[in-house]
Amino acid sequence: MNRSVYVAGMGSTAFGKHAGTSIEALAVDASAQALVDAGIDRTRIGAVYLGNFISGPLNGKEVLAGLVAEQLGLQGIPCTKVEGACASGGIALRHACLMVAAGIHDAVLVVGVETMTHASTPEVTSALNCAMDNEYDGLSGLTFPGLFGLAWRAHAQRYGTSREDVAAVVIKNKAFGLNNPLAQMGAALTIDQIAVSAMIADPLQLFDCCPPSDGAAAVVVCTKDLLSDLPNHPRIRVMASVQTSGSARIAQHPDLCSFDATVLAAQQAYQQSGLQPADIDLVELHDCFSIAEIIDSEDLGLVPRGEGGRWAAQGRTGMHGDVVINPSGGLLAKGHPVGATGVGQIVEVVSQLRGVHPNQVDQAGIGMTHNLGGTGVACTVHILGREA
Amino acid sequence: MNRSVYVAGMGSTAFGKHAGTSIEALAVDASAQALVDAGIDRTRIGAVYLGNFISGPLNGKEVLAGLVAEQLGLQGIPCTKVEGACASGGIALRHACLMVAAGIHDAVLVVGVETMTHASTPEVTSALNCAMDNEYDGLSGLTFPGLFGLAWRAHAQRYGTSREDVAAVVIKNKAFGLNNPLAQMGAALTIDQIAVSAMIADPLQLFDCCPPSDGAAAVVVCTKDLLSDLPNHPRIRVMASVQTSGSARIAQHPDLCSFDATVLAAQQAYQQSGLQPADIDLVELHDCFSIAEIIDSEDLGLVPRGEGGRWAAQGRTGMHGDVVINPSGGLLAKGHPVGATGVGQIVEVVSQLRGVHPNQVDQAGIGMTHNLGGTGVACTVHILGREA
Repeated sequence: MNRSVYVAGMGSTAFGKHAGTSIEALAVDASAQALVDAGIDRTRIGAVYLGNFISGPLNGKEVLAGLVAEQLGLQGIPCTKVEGACASGGIALRHACLMVAAGIHDAVLVVGVETMTHASTPEVTSALNCAMDNEYDGLSGLTFPGLFGLAWRAHAQRYGTSREDVAAVVIKNKAFGLNNPLAQMGAALTIDQIAVSAMIADPLQLFDCCPPSDGAAAVVVCTKDLLSDLPNHPRIRVMASVQTSGSARIAQHPDLCSFDATVLAAQQAYQQSGLQPADIDLVELHDCFSIAEIIDSEDLGLVPRGEGGRWAAQGRTGMHGDVVINPSGGLLAKGHPVGATGVGQIVEVVSQLRGVHPNQVDQAGIGMTHNLGGTGVACTVHILGREA
Repeated sequence: MNRSVYVAGMGSTAFGKHAGTSIEALAVDASAQALVDAGIDRTRIGAVYLGNFISGPLNGKEVLAGLVAEQLGLQGIPCTKVEGACASGGIALRHACLMVAAGIHDAVLVVGVETMTHASTPEVTSALNCAMDNEYDGLSGLTFPGLFGLAWRAHAQRYGTSREDVAAVVIKNKAFGLNNPLAQMGAALTIDQIAVSAMIADPLQLFDCCPPSDGAAAVVVCTKDLLSDLPNHPRIRVMASVQTSGSARIAQHPDLCSFDATVLAAQQAYQQSGLQPADIDLVELHDCFSIAEIIDSEDLGLVPRGEGGRWAAQGRTGMHGDVVINPSGGLLAKGHPVGATGVGQIVEVVSQLRGVHPNQVDQAGIGMTHNLGGTGVACTVHILGREA
């Protein structure tokens, strides 16, 4: 990347149920917050990238980037929806960063949005399955809980990961969520409560699964020059912005305990930023299921391979651990409005790096986000750093 | 744009009915043709951009960019679906061009794809309406034929455009389509046949409307350096690549006889290329309805305002006219597999500039494409030129 890219503003709706609010209205709300937070004149926004996954099937609405821009009074500029299943938000951010870095635009608005809670469970399940290779894997009848249930079994067999280890992730993230006003399902849970909750896809139980959500999150990214004209927030620089792909076919994964796309994205992100895993103070990663946090933490190189469960159980991924994982509450507690999630992670990290997060990590200087689509078919990793 | 961008290869399925062929298979077919035509080793492809509009609602499939890349054996690279209604294909091409121009990748695969003919007419109509602002315009009950019917009435009232003028567009494009093996609905039509065809949305009749289609088209774009390693096709350079937005709300359009997004995109494309309308030898523009060709030709500056109908009737937009419009047969004769259309236009223009088109325009040196989404909410314009 040629020019440095900074996050100048951020905004988010709460994640949760927003019955009666249109998907455009949620996106406009988060976007307007981000524009105000950035203190930027709307005429300086050169493009809009909108991350969304299933507004077509669930809302009968596409071309959302243009609809949202129009309501924001942004006229004539390129407005693009990008889609990569659950990684849609991260992909939107990456494109905004590329446009600024390459000198094509000086400031770009990024917004991620999804609404799901208005639809029935079978409708939502069907729509989410748009992220799988149904021609190839459909016959197996696996939905996403099925896949991650298999992954858990494989991880348990190979590394000895126990129900208690996995529950430690749930307890941590649900507790973080209690303090986060953007989170929809924070809770003070015990291992016993988790262990008696409904079975979803053995061994995944109810509290191991993120809830369906409505929500939107937005950020404004811009050049260093433009940033100097804006309100005096701490300077948050995008140190790495990476997008990769992996197999969409479950049977093609050489290892159910790892996602190739994450491993590759992490390698590229460390290389791009010149950082190492030990430099990362906190990470917002894609815990769509509890076991996913364990696998992701290993794939990102933050935790030794096979140790993700034990590190969680020993508190090494908690607030005073070696690396703080999902201090927002993660997808498990915040919820997972699919297209919004990757941008919401950025909002959480920026909040940490500004030192204003409700679950503030001490001395947070470097934060990472990780957004994984489908069965690992798309992945984004971003690293953000606070400049003095 | 910093680095020059060239179209190194192209491929397309026929547009039409492809019953029993999956949307991924169509995209893979066109992409594989483009890769072979480019003669490029697949390991040199740095990213995939896939244009698609309504695979979610009509096929229950998203994350197509990753699915298609996997089947092509492209591993690990960023794969992004972009969506901007009927302009999705043009938006995919623009992003590929930006990535090459900015030095992010040396070669990028672009593919546009859609399947529609498997779905019922009400399903297709509903899905197409995803491109409108249904919160705002839904109450009016307008579908796209309704909008373009209104536009025709406005154009007729203001400029005196007649049924005969508009029929001249249909007769021309249907005749071009007869020679084009990629076109699904070429025909030798008379004004009488058009005038007695079924009324769709008064004054639009059956032959004034493009048919629903399945199909895919693909191109490979790359740097000049990389091109020199590839087979010795004529050098086709992307001289302008522009994306704009306009109002999605019909009642917000100041003028039904013009689309702001097209006017702005054309201005920017002429500026970017240093060319003028008189330099354009041929154009593939977005004739989703016959009247749209007339409006688009005026918005692009190729025909004087209000004269689009008369120019068509006088043969000034035909094979030996002032500017050749839609020598492929356009959407009216080729069909309109929505996400594929913008890329298909590029395939047609490249074919012209290589001198191998079934309706070859004499001395074709400069070609333009124009792709318009929804009610003018998204627009792309590209200008391609053959280098000596």
